[in-house]
Amino acid sequence: MRILGIDPGIAIVGYGVIDVERGNYSLVDYGVITTPKEENTPTRLCMIERSLIKLIEQYKPDNIALEELFFARNTTTAITVAEARGVLLLTATKYCGSLFEYTPLQIKQAITGYGKADKNQVQQMVKMMLKLKSIPKPDDAADALAVAITHGQTNKMANMFRI
Amino acid sequence: MRILGIDPGIAIVGYGVIDVERGNYSLVDYGVITTPKEENTPTRLCMIERSLIKLIEQYKPDNIALEELFFARNTTTAITVAEARGVLLLTATKYCGSLFEYTPLQIKQAITGYGKADKNQVQQMVKMMLKLKSIPKPDDAADALAVAITHGQTNKMANMFRI
Repeated sequence: MRILGIDPGIAIVGYGVIDVERGNYSLVDYGVITTPKEENTPTRLCMIERSLIKLIEQYKPDNIALEELFFARNTTTAITVAEARGVLLLTATKYCGSLFEYTPLQIKQAITGYGKADKNQVQQMVKMMLKLKSIPKPDDAADALAVAITHGQTNKMANMFRI
Repeated sequence: MRILGIDPGIAIVGYGVIDVERGNYSLVDYGVITTPKEENTPTRLCMIERSLIKLIEQYKPDNIALEELFFARNTTTAITVAEARGVLLLTATKYCGSLFEYTPLQIKQAITGYGKADKNQVQQMVKMMLKLKSIPKPDDAADALAVAITHGQTNKMANMFRI
């Protein structure tokens, strides 16, 4: 199964593509979609939509996993990120159809088995599970890989308890 | 000039279509797009996108005017409404291309000349300016007509000061 993980944002959207076969994870690709600060929000949203469509067409994921929005203290930023998230949810549903969402807590638990794990612990586990030489950079891409693995883990558990 | 005004939301999106000719406003149509609470957010976002595309195709507005998000105290609601707003911004830009945004303060000032006007004062002015027999219902549709008129007024002022 191929999973596309997405870490939502307006300036930077992280993405990570992995394959899962019998509980083994392998990296396909990772990176970021960026939009320039100088552009207005509607233009940036159109850029994000186009880039996500391209990623879906290129990698043909079976499922897409998105990180749920963290309620930032800066409300204005949170609103703009939520607008971008709306575009990501719409596009993922239209072009892939199989969409799953995970909270930061669910991601920490699925990857480290510990809900209070810090960013570095999660990233170290991502590196180990994907058999990488170093932690993927930037953080947004590492976060996207983490949510993709979370979906793989959750799916594995669901299959384990299926009769 | 034909203007489509939009009052963003996830459960109810208000819309109002008006024509402006030499400072005179006339009503074309108004109403609401609704999405069922039982559906998940991505499905509701897809419904909102499809309905907005239909409205744009039906009324062929020259400009679209959207109300900027009010920061609700209920953050969860604000996030979901912002997600819907992202879809509305994307769709308006893709299918119309000419998009304008106004804050609640700008709307009150443009319509009543007074930034502290209450909802009823704004609605009475909308009724008068569009020569209607009663205030349009529900509120979401009246709000959408108010933002459409705001764009008409702002445009008139811009033309007045053009050399």
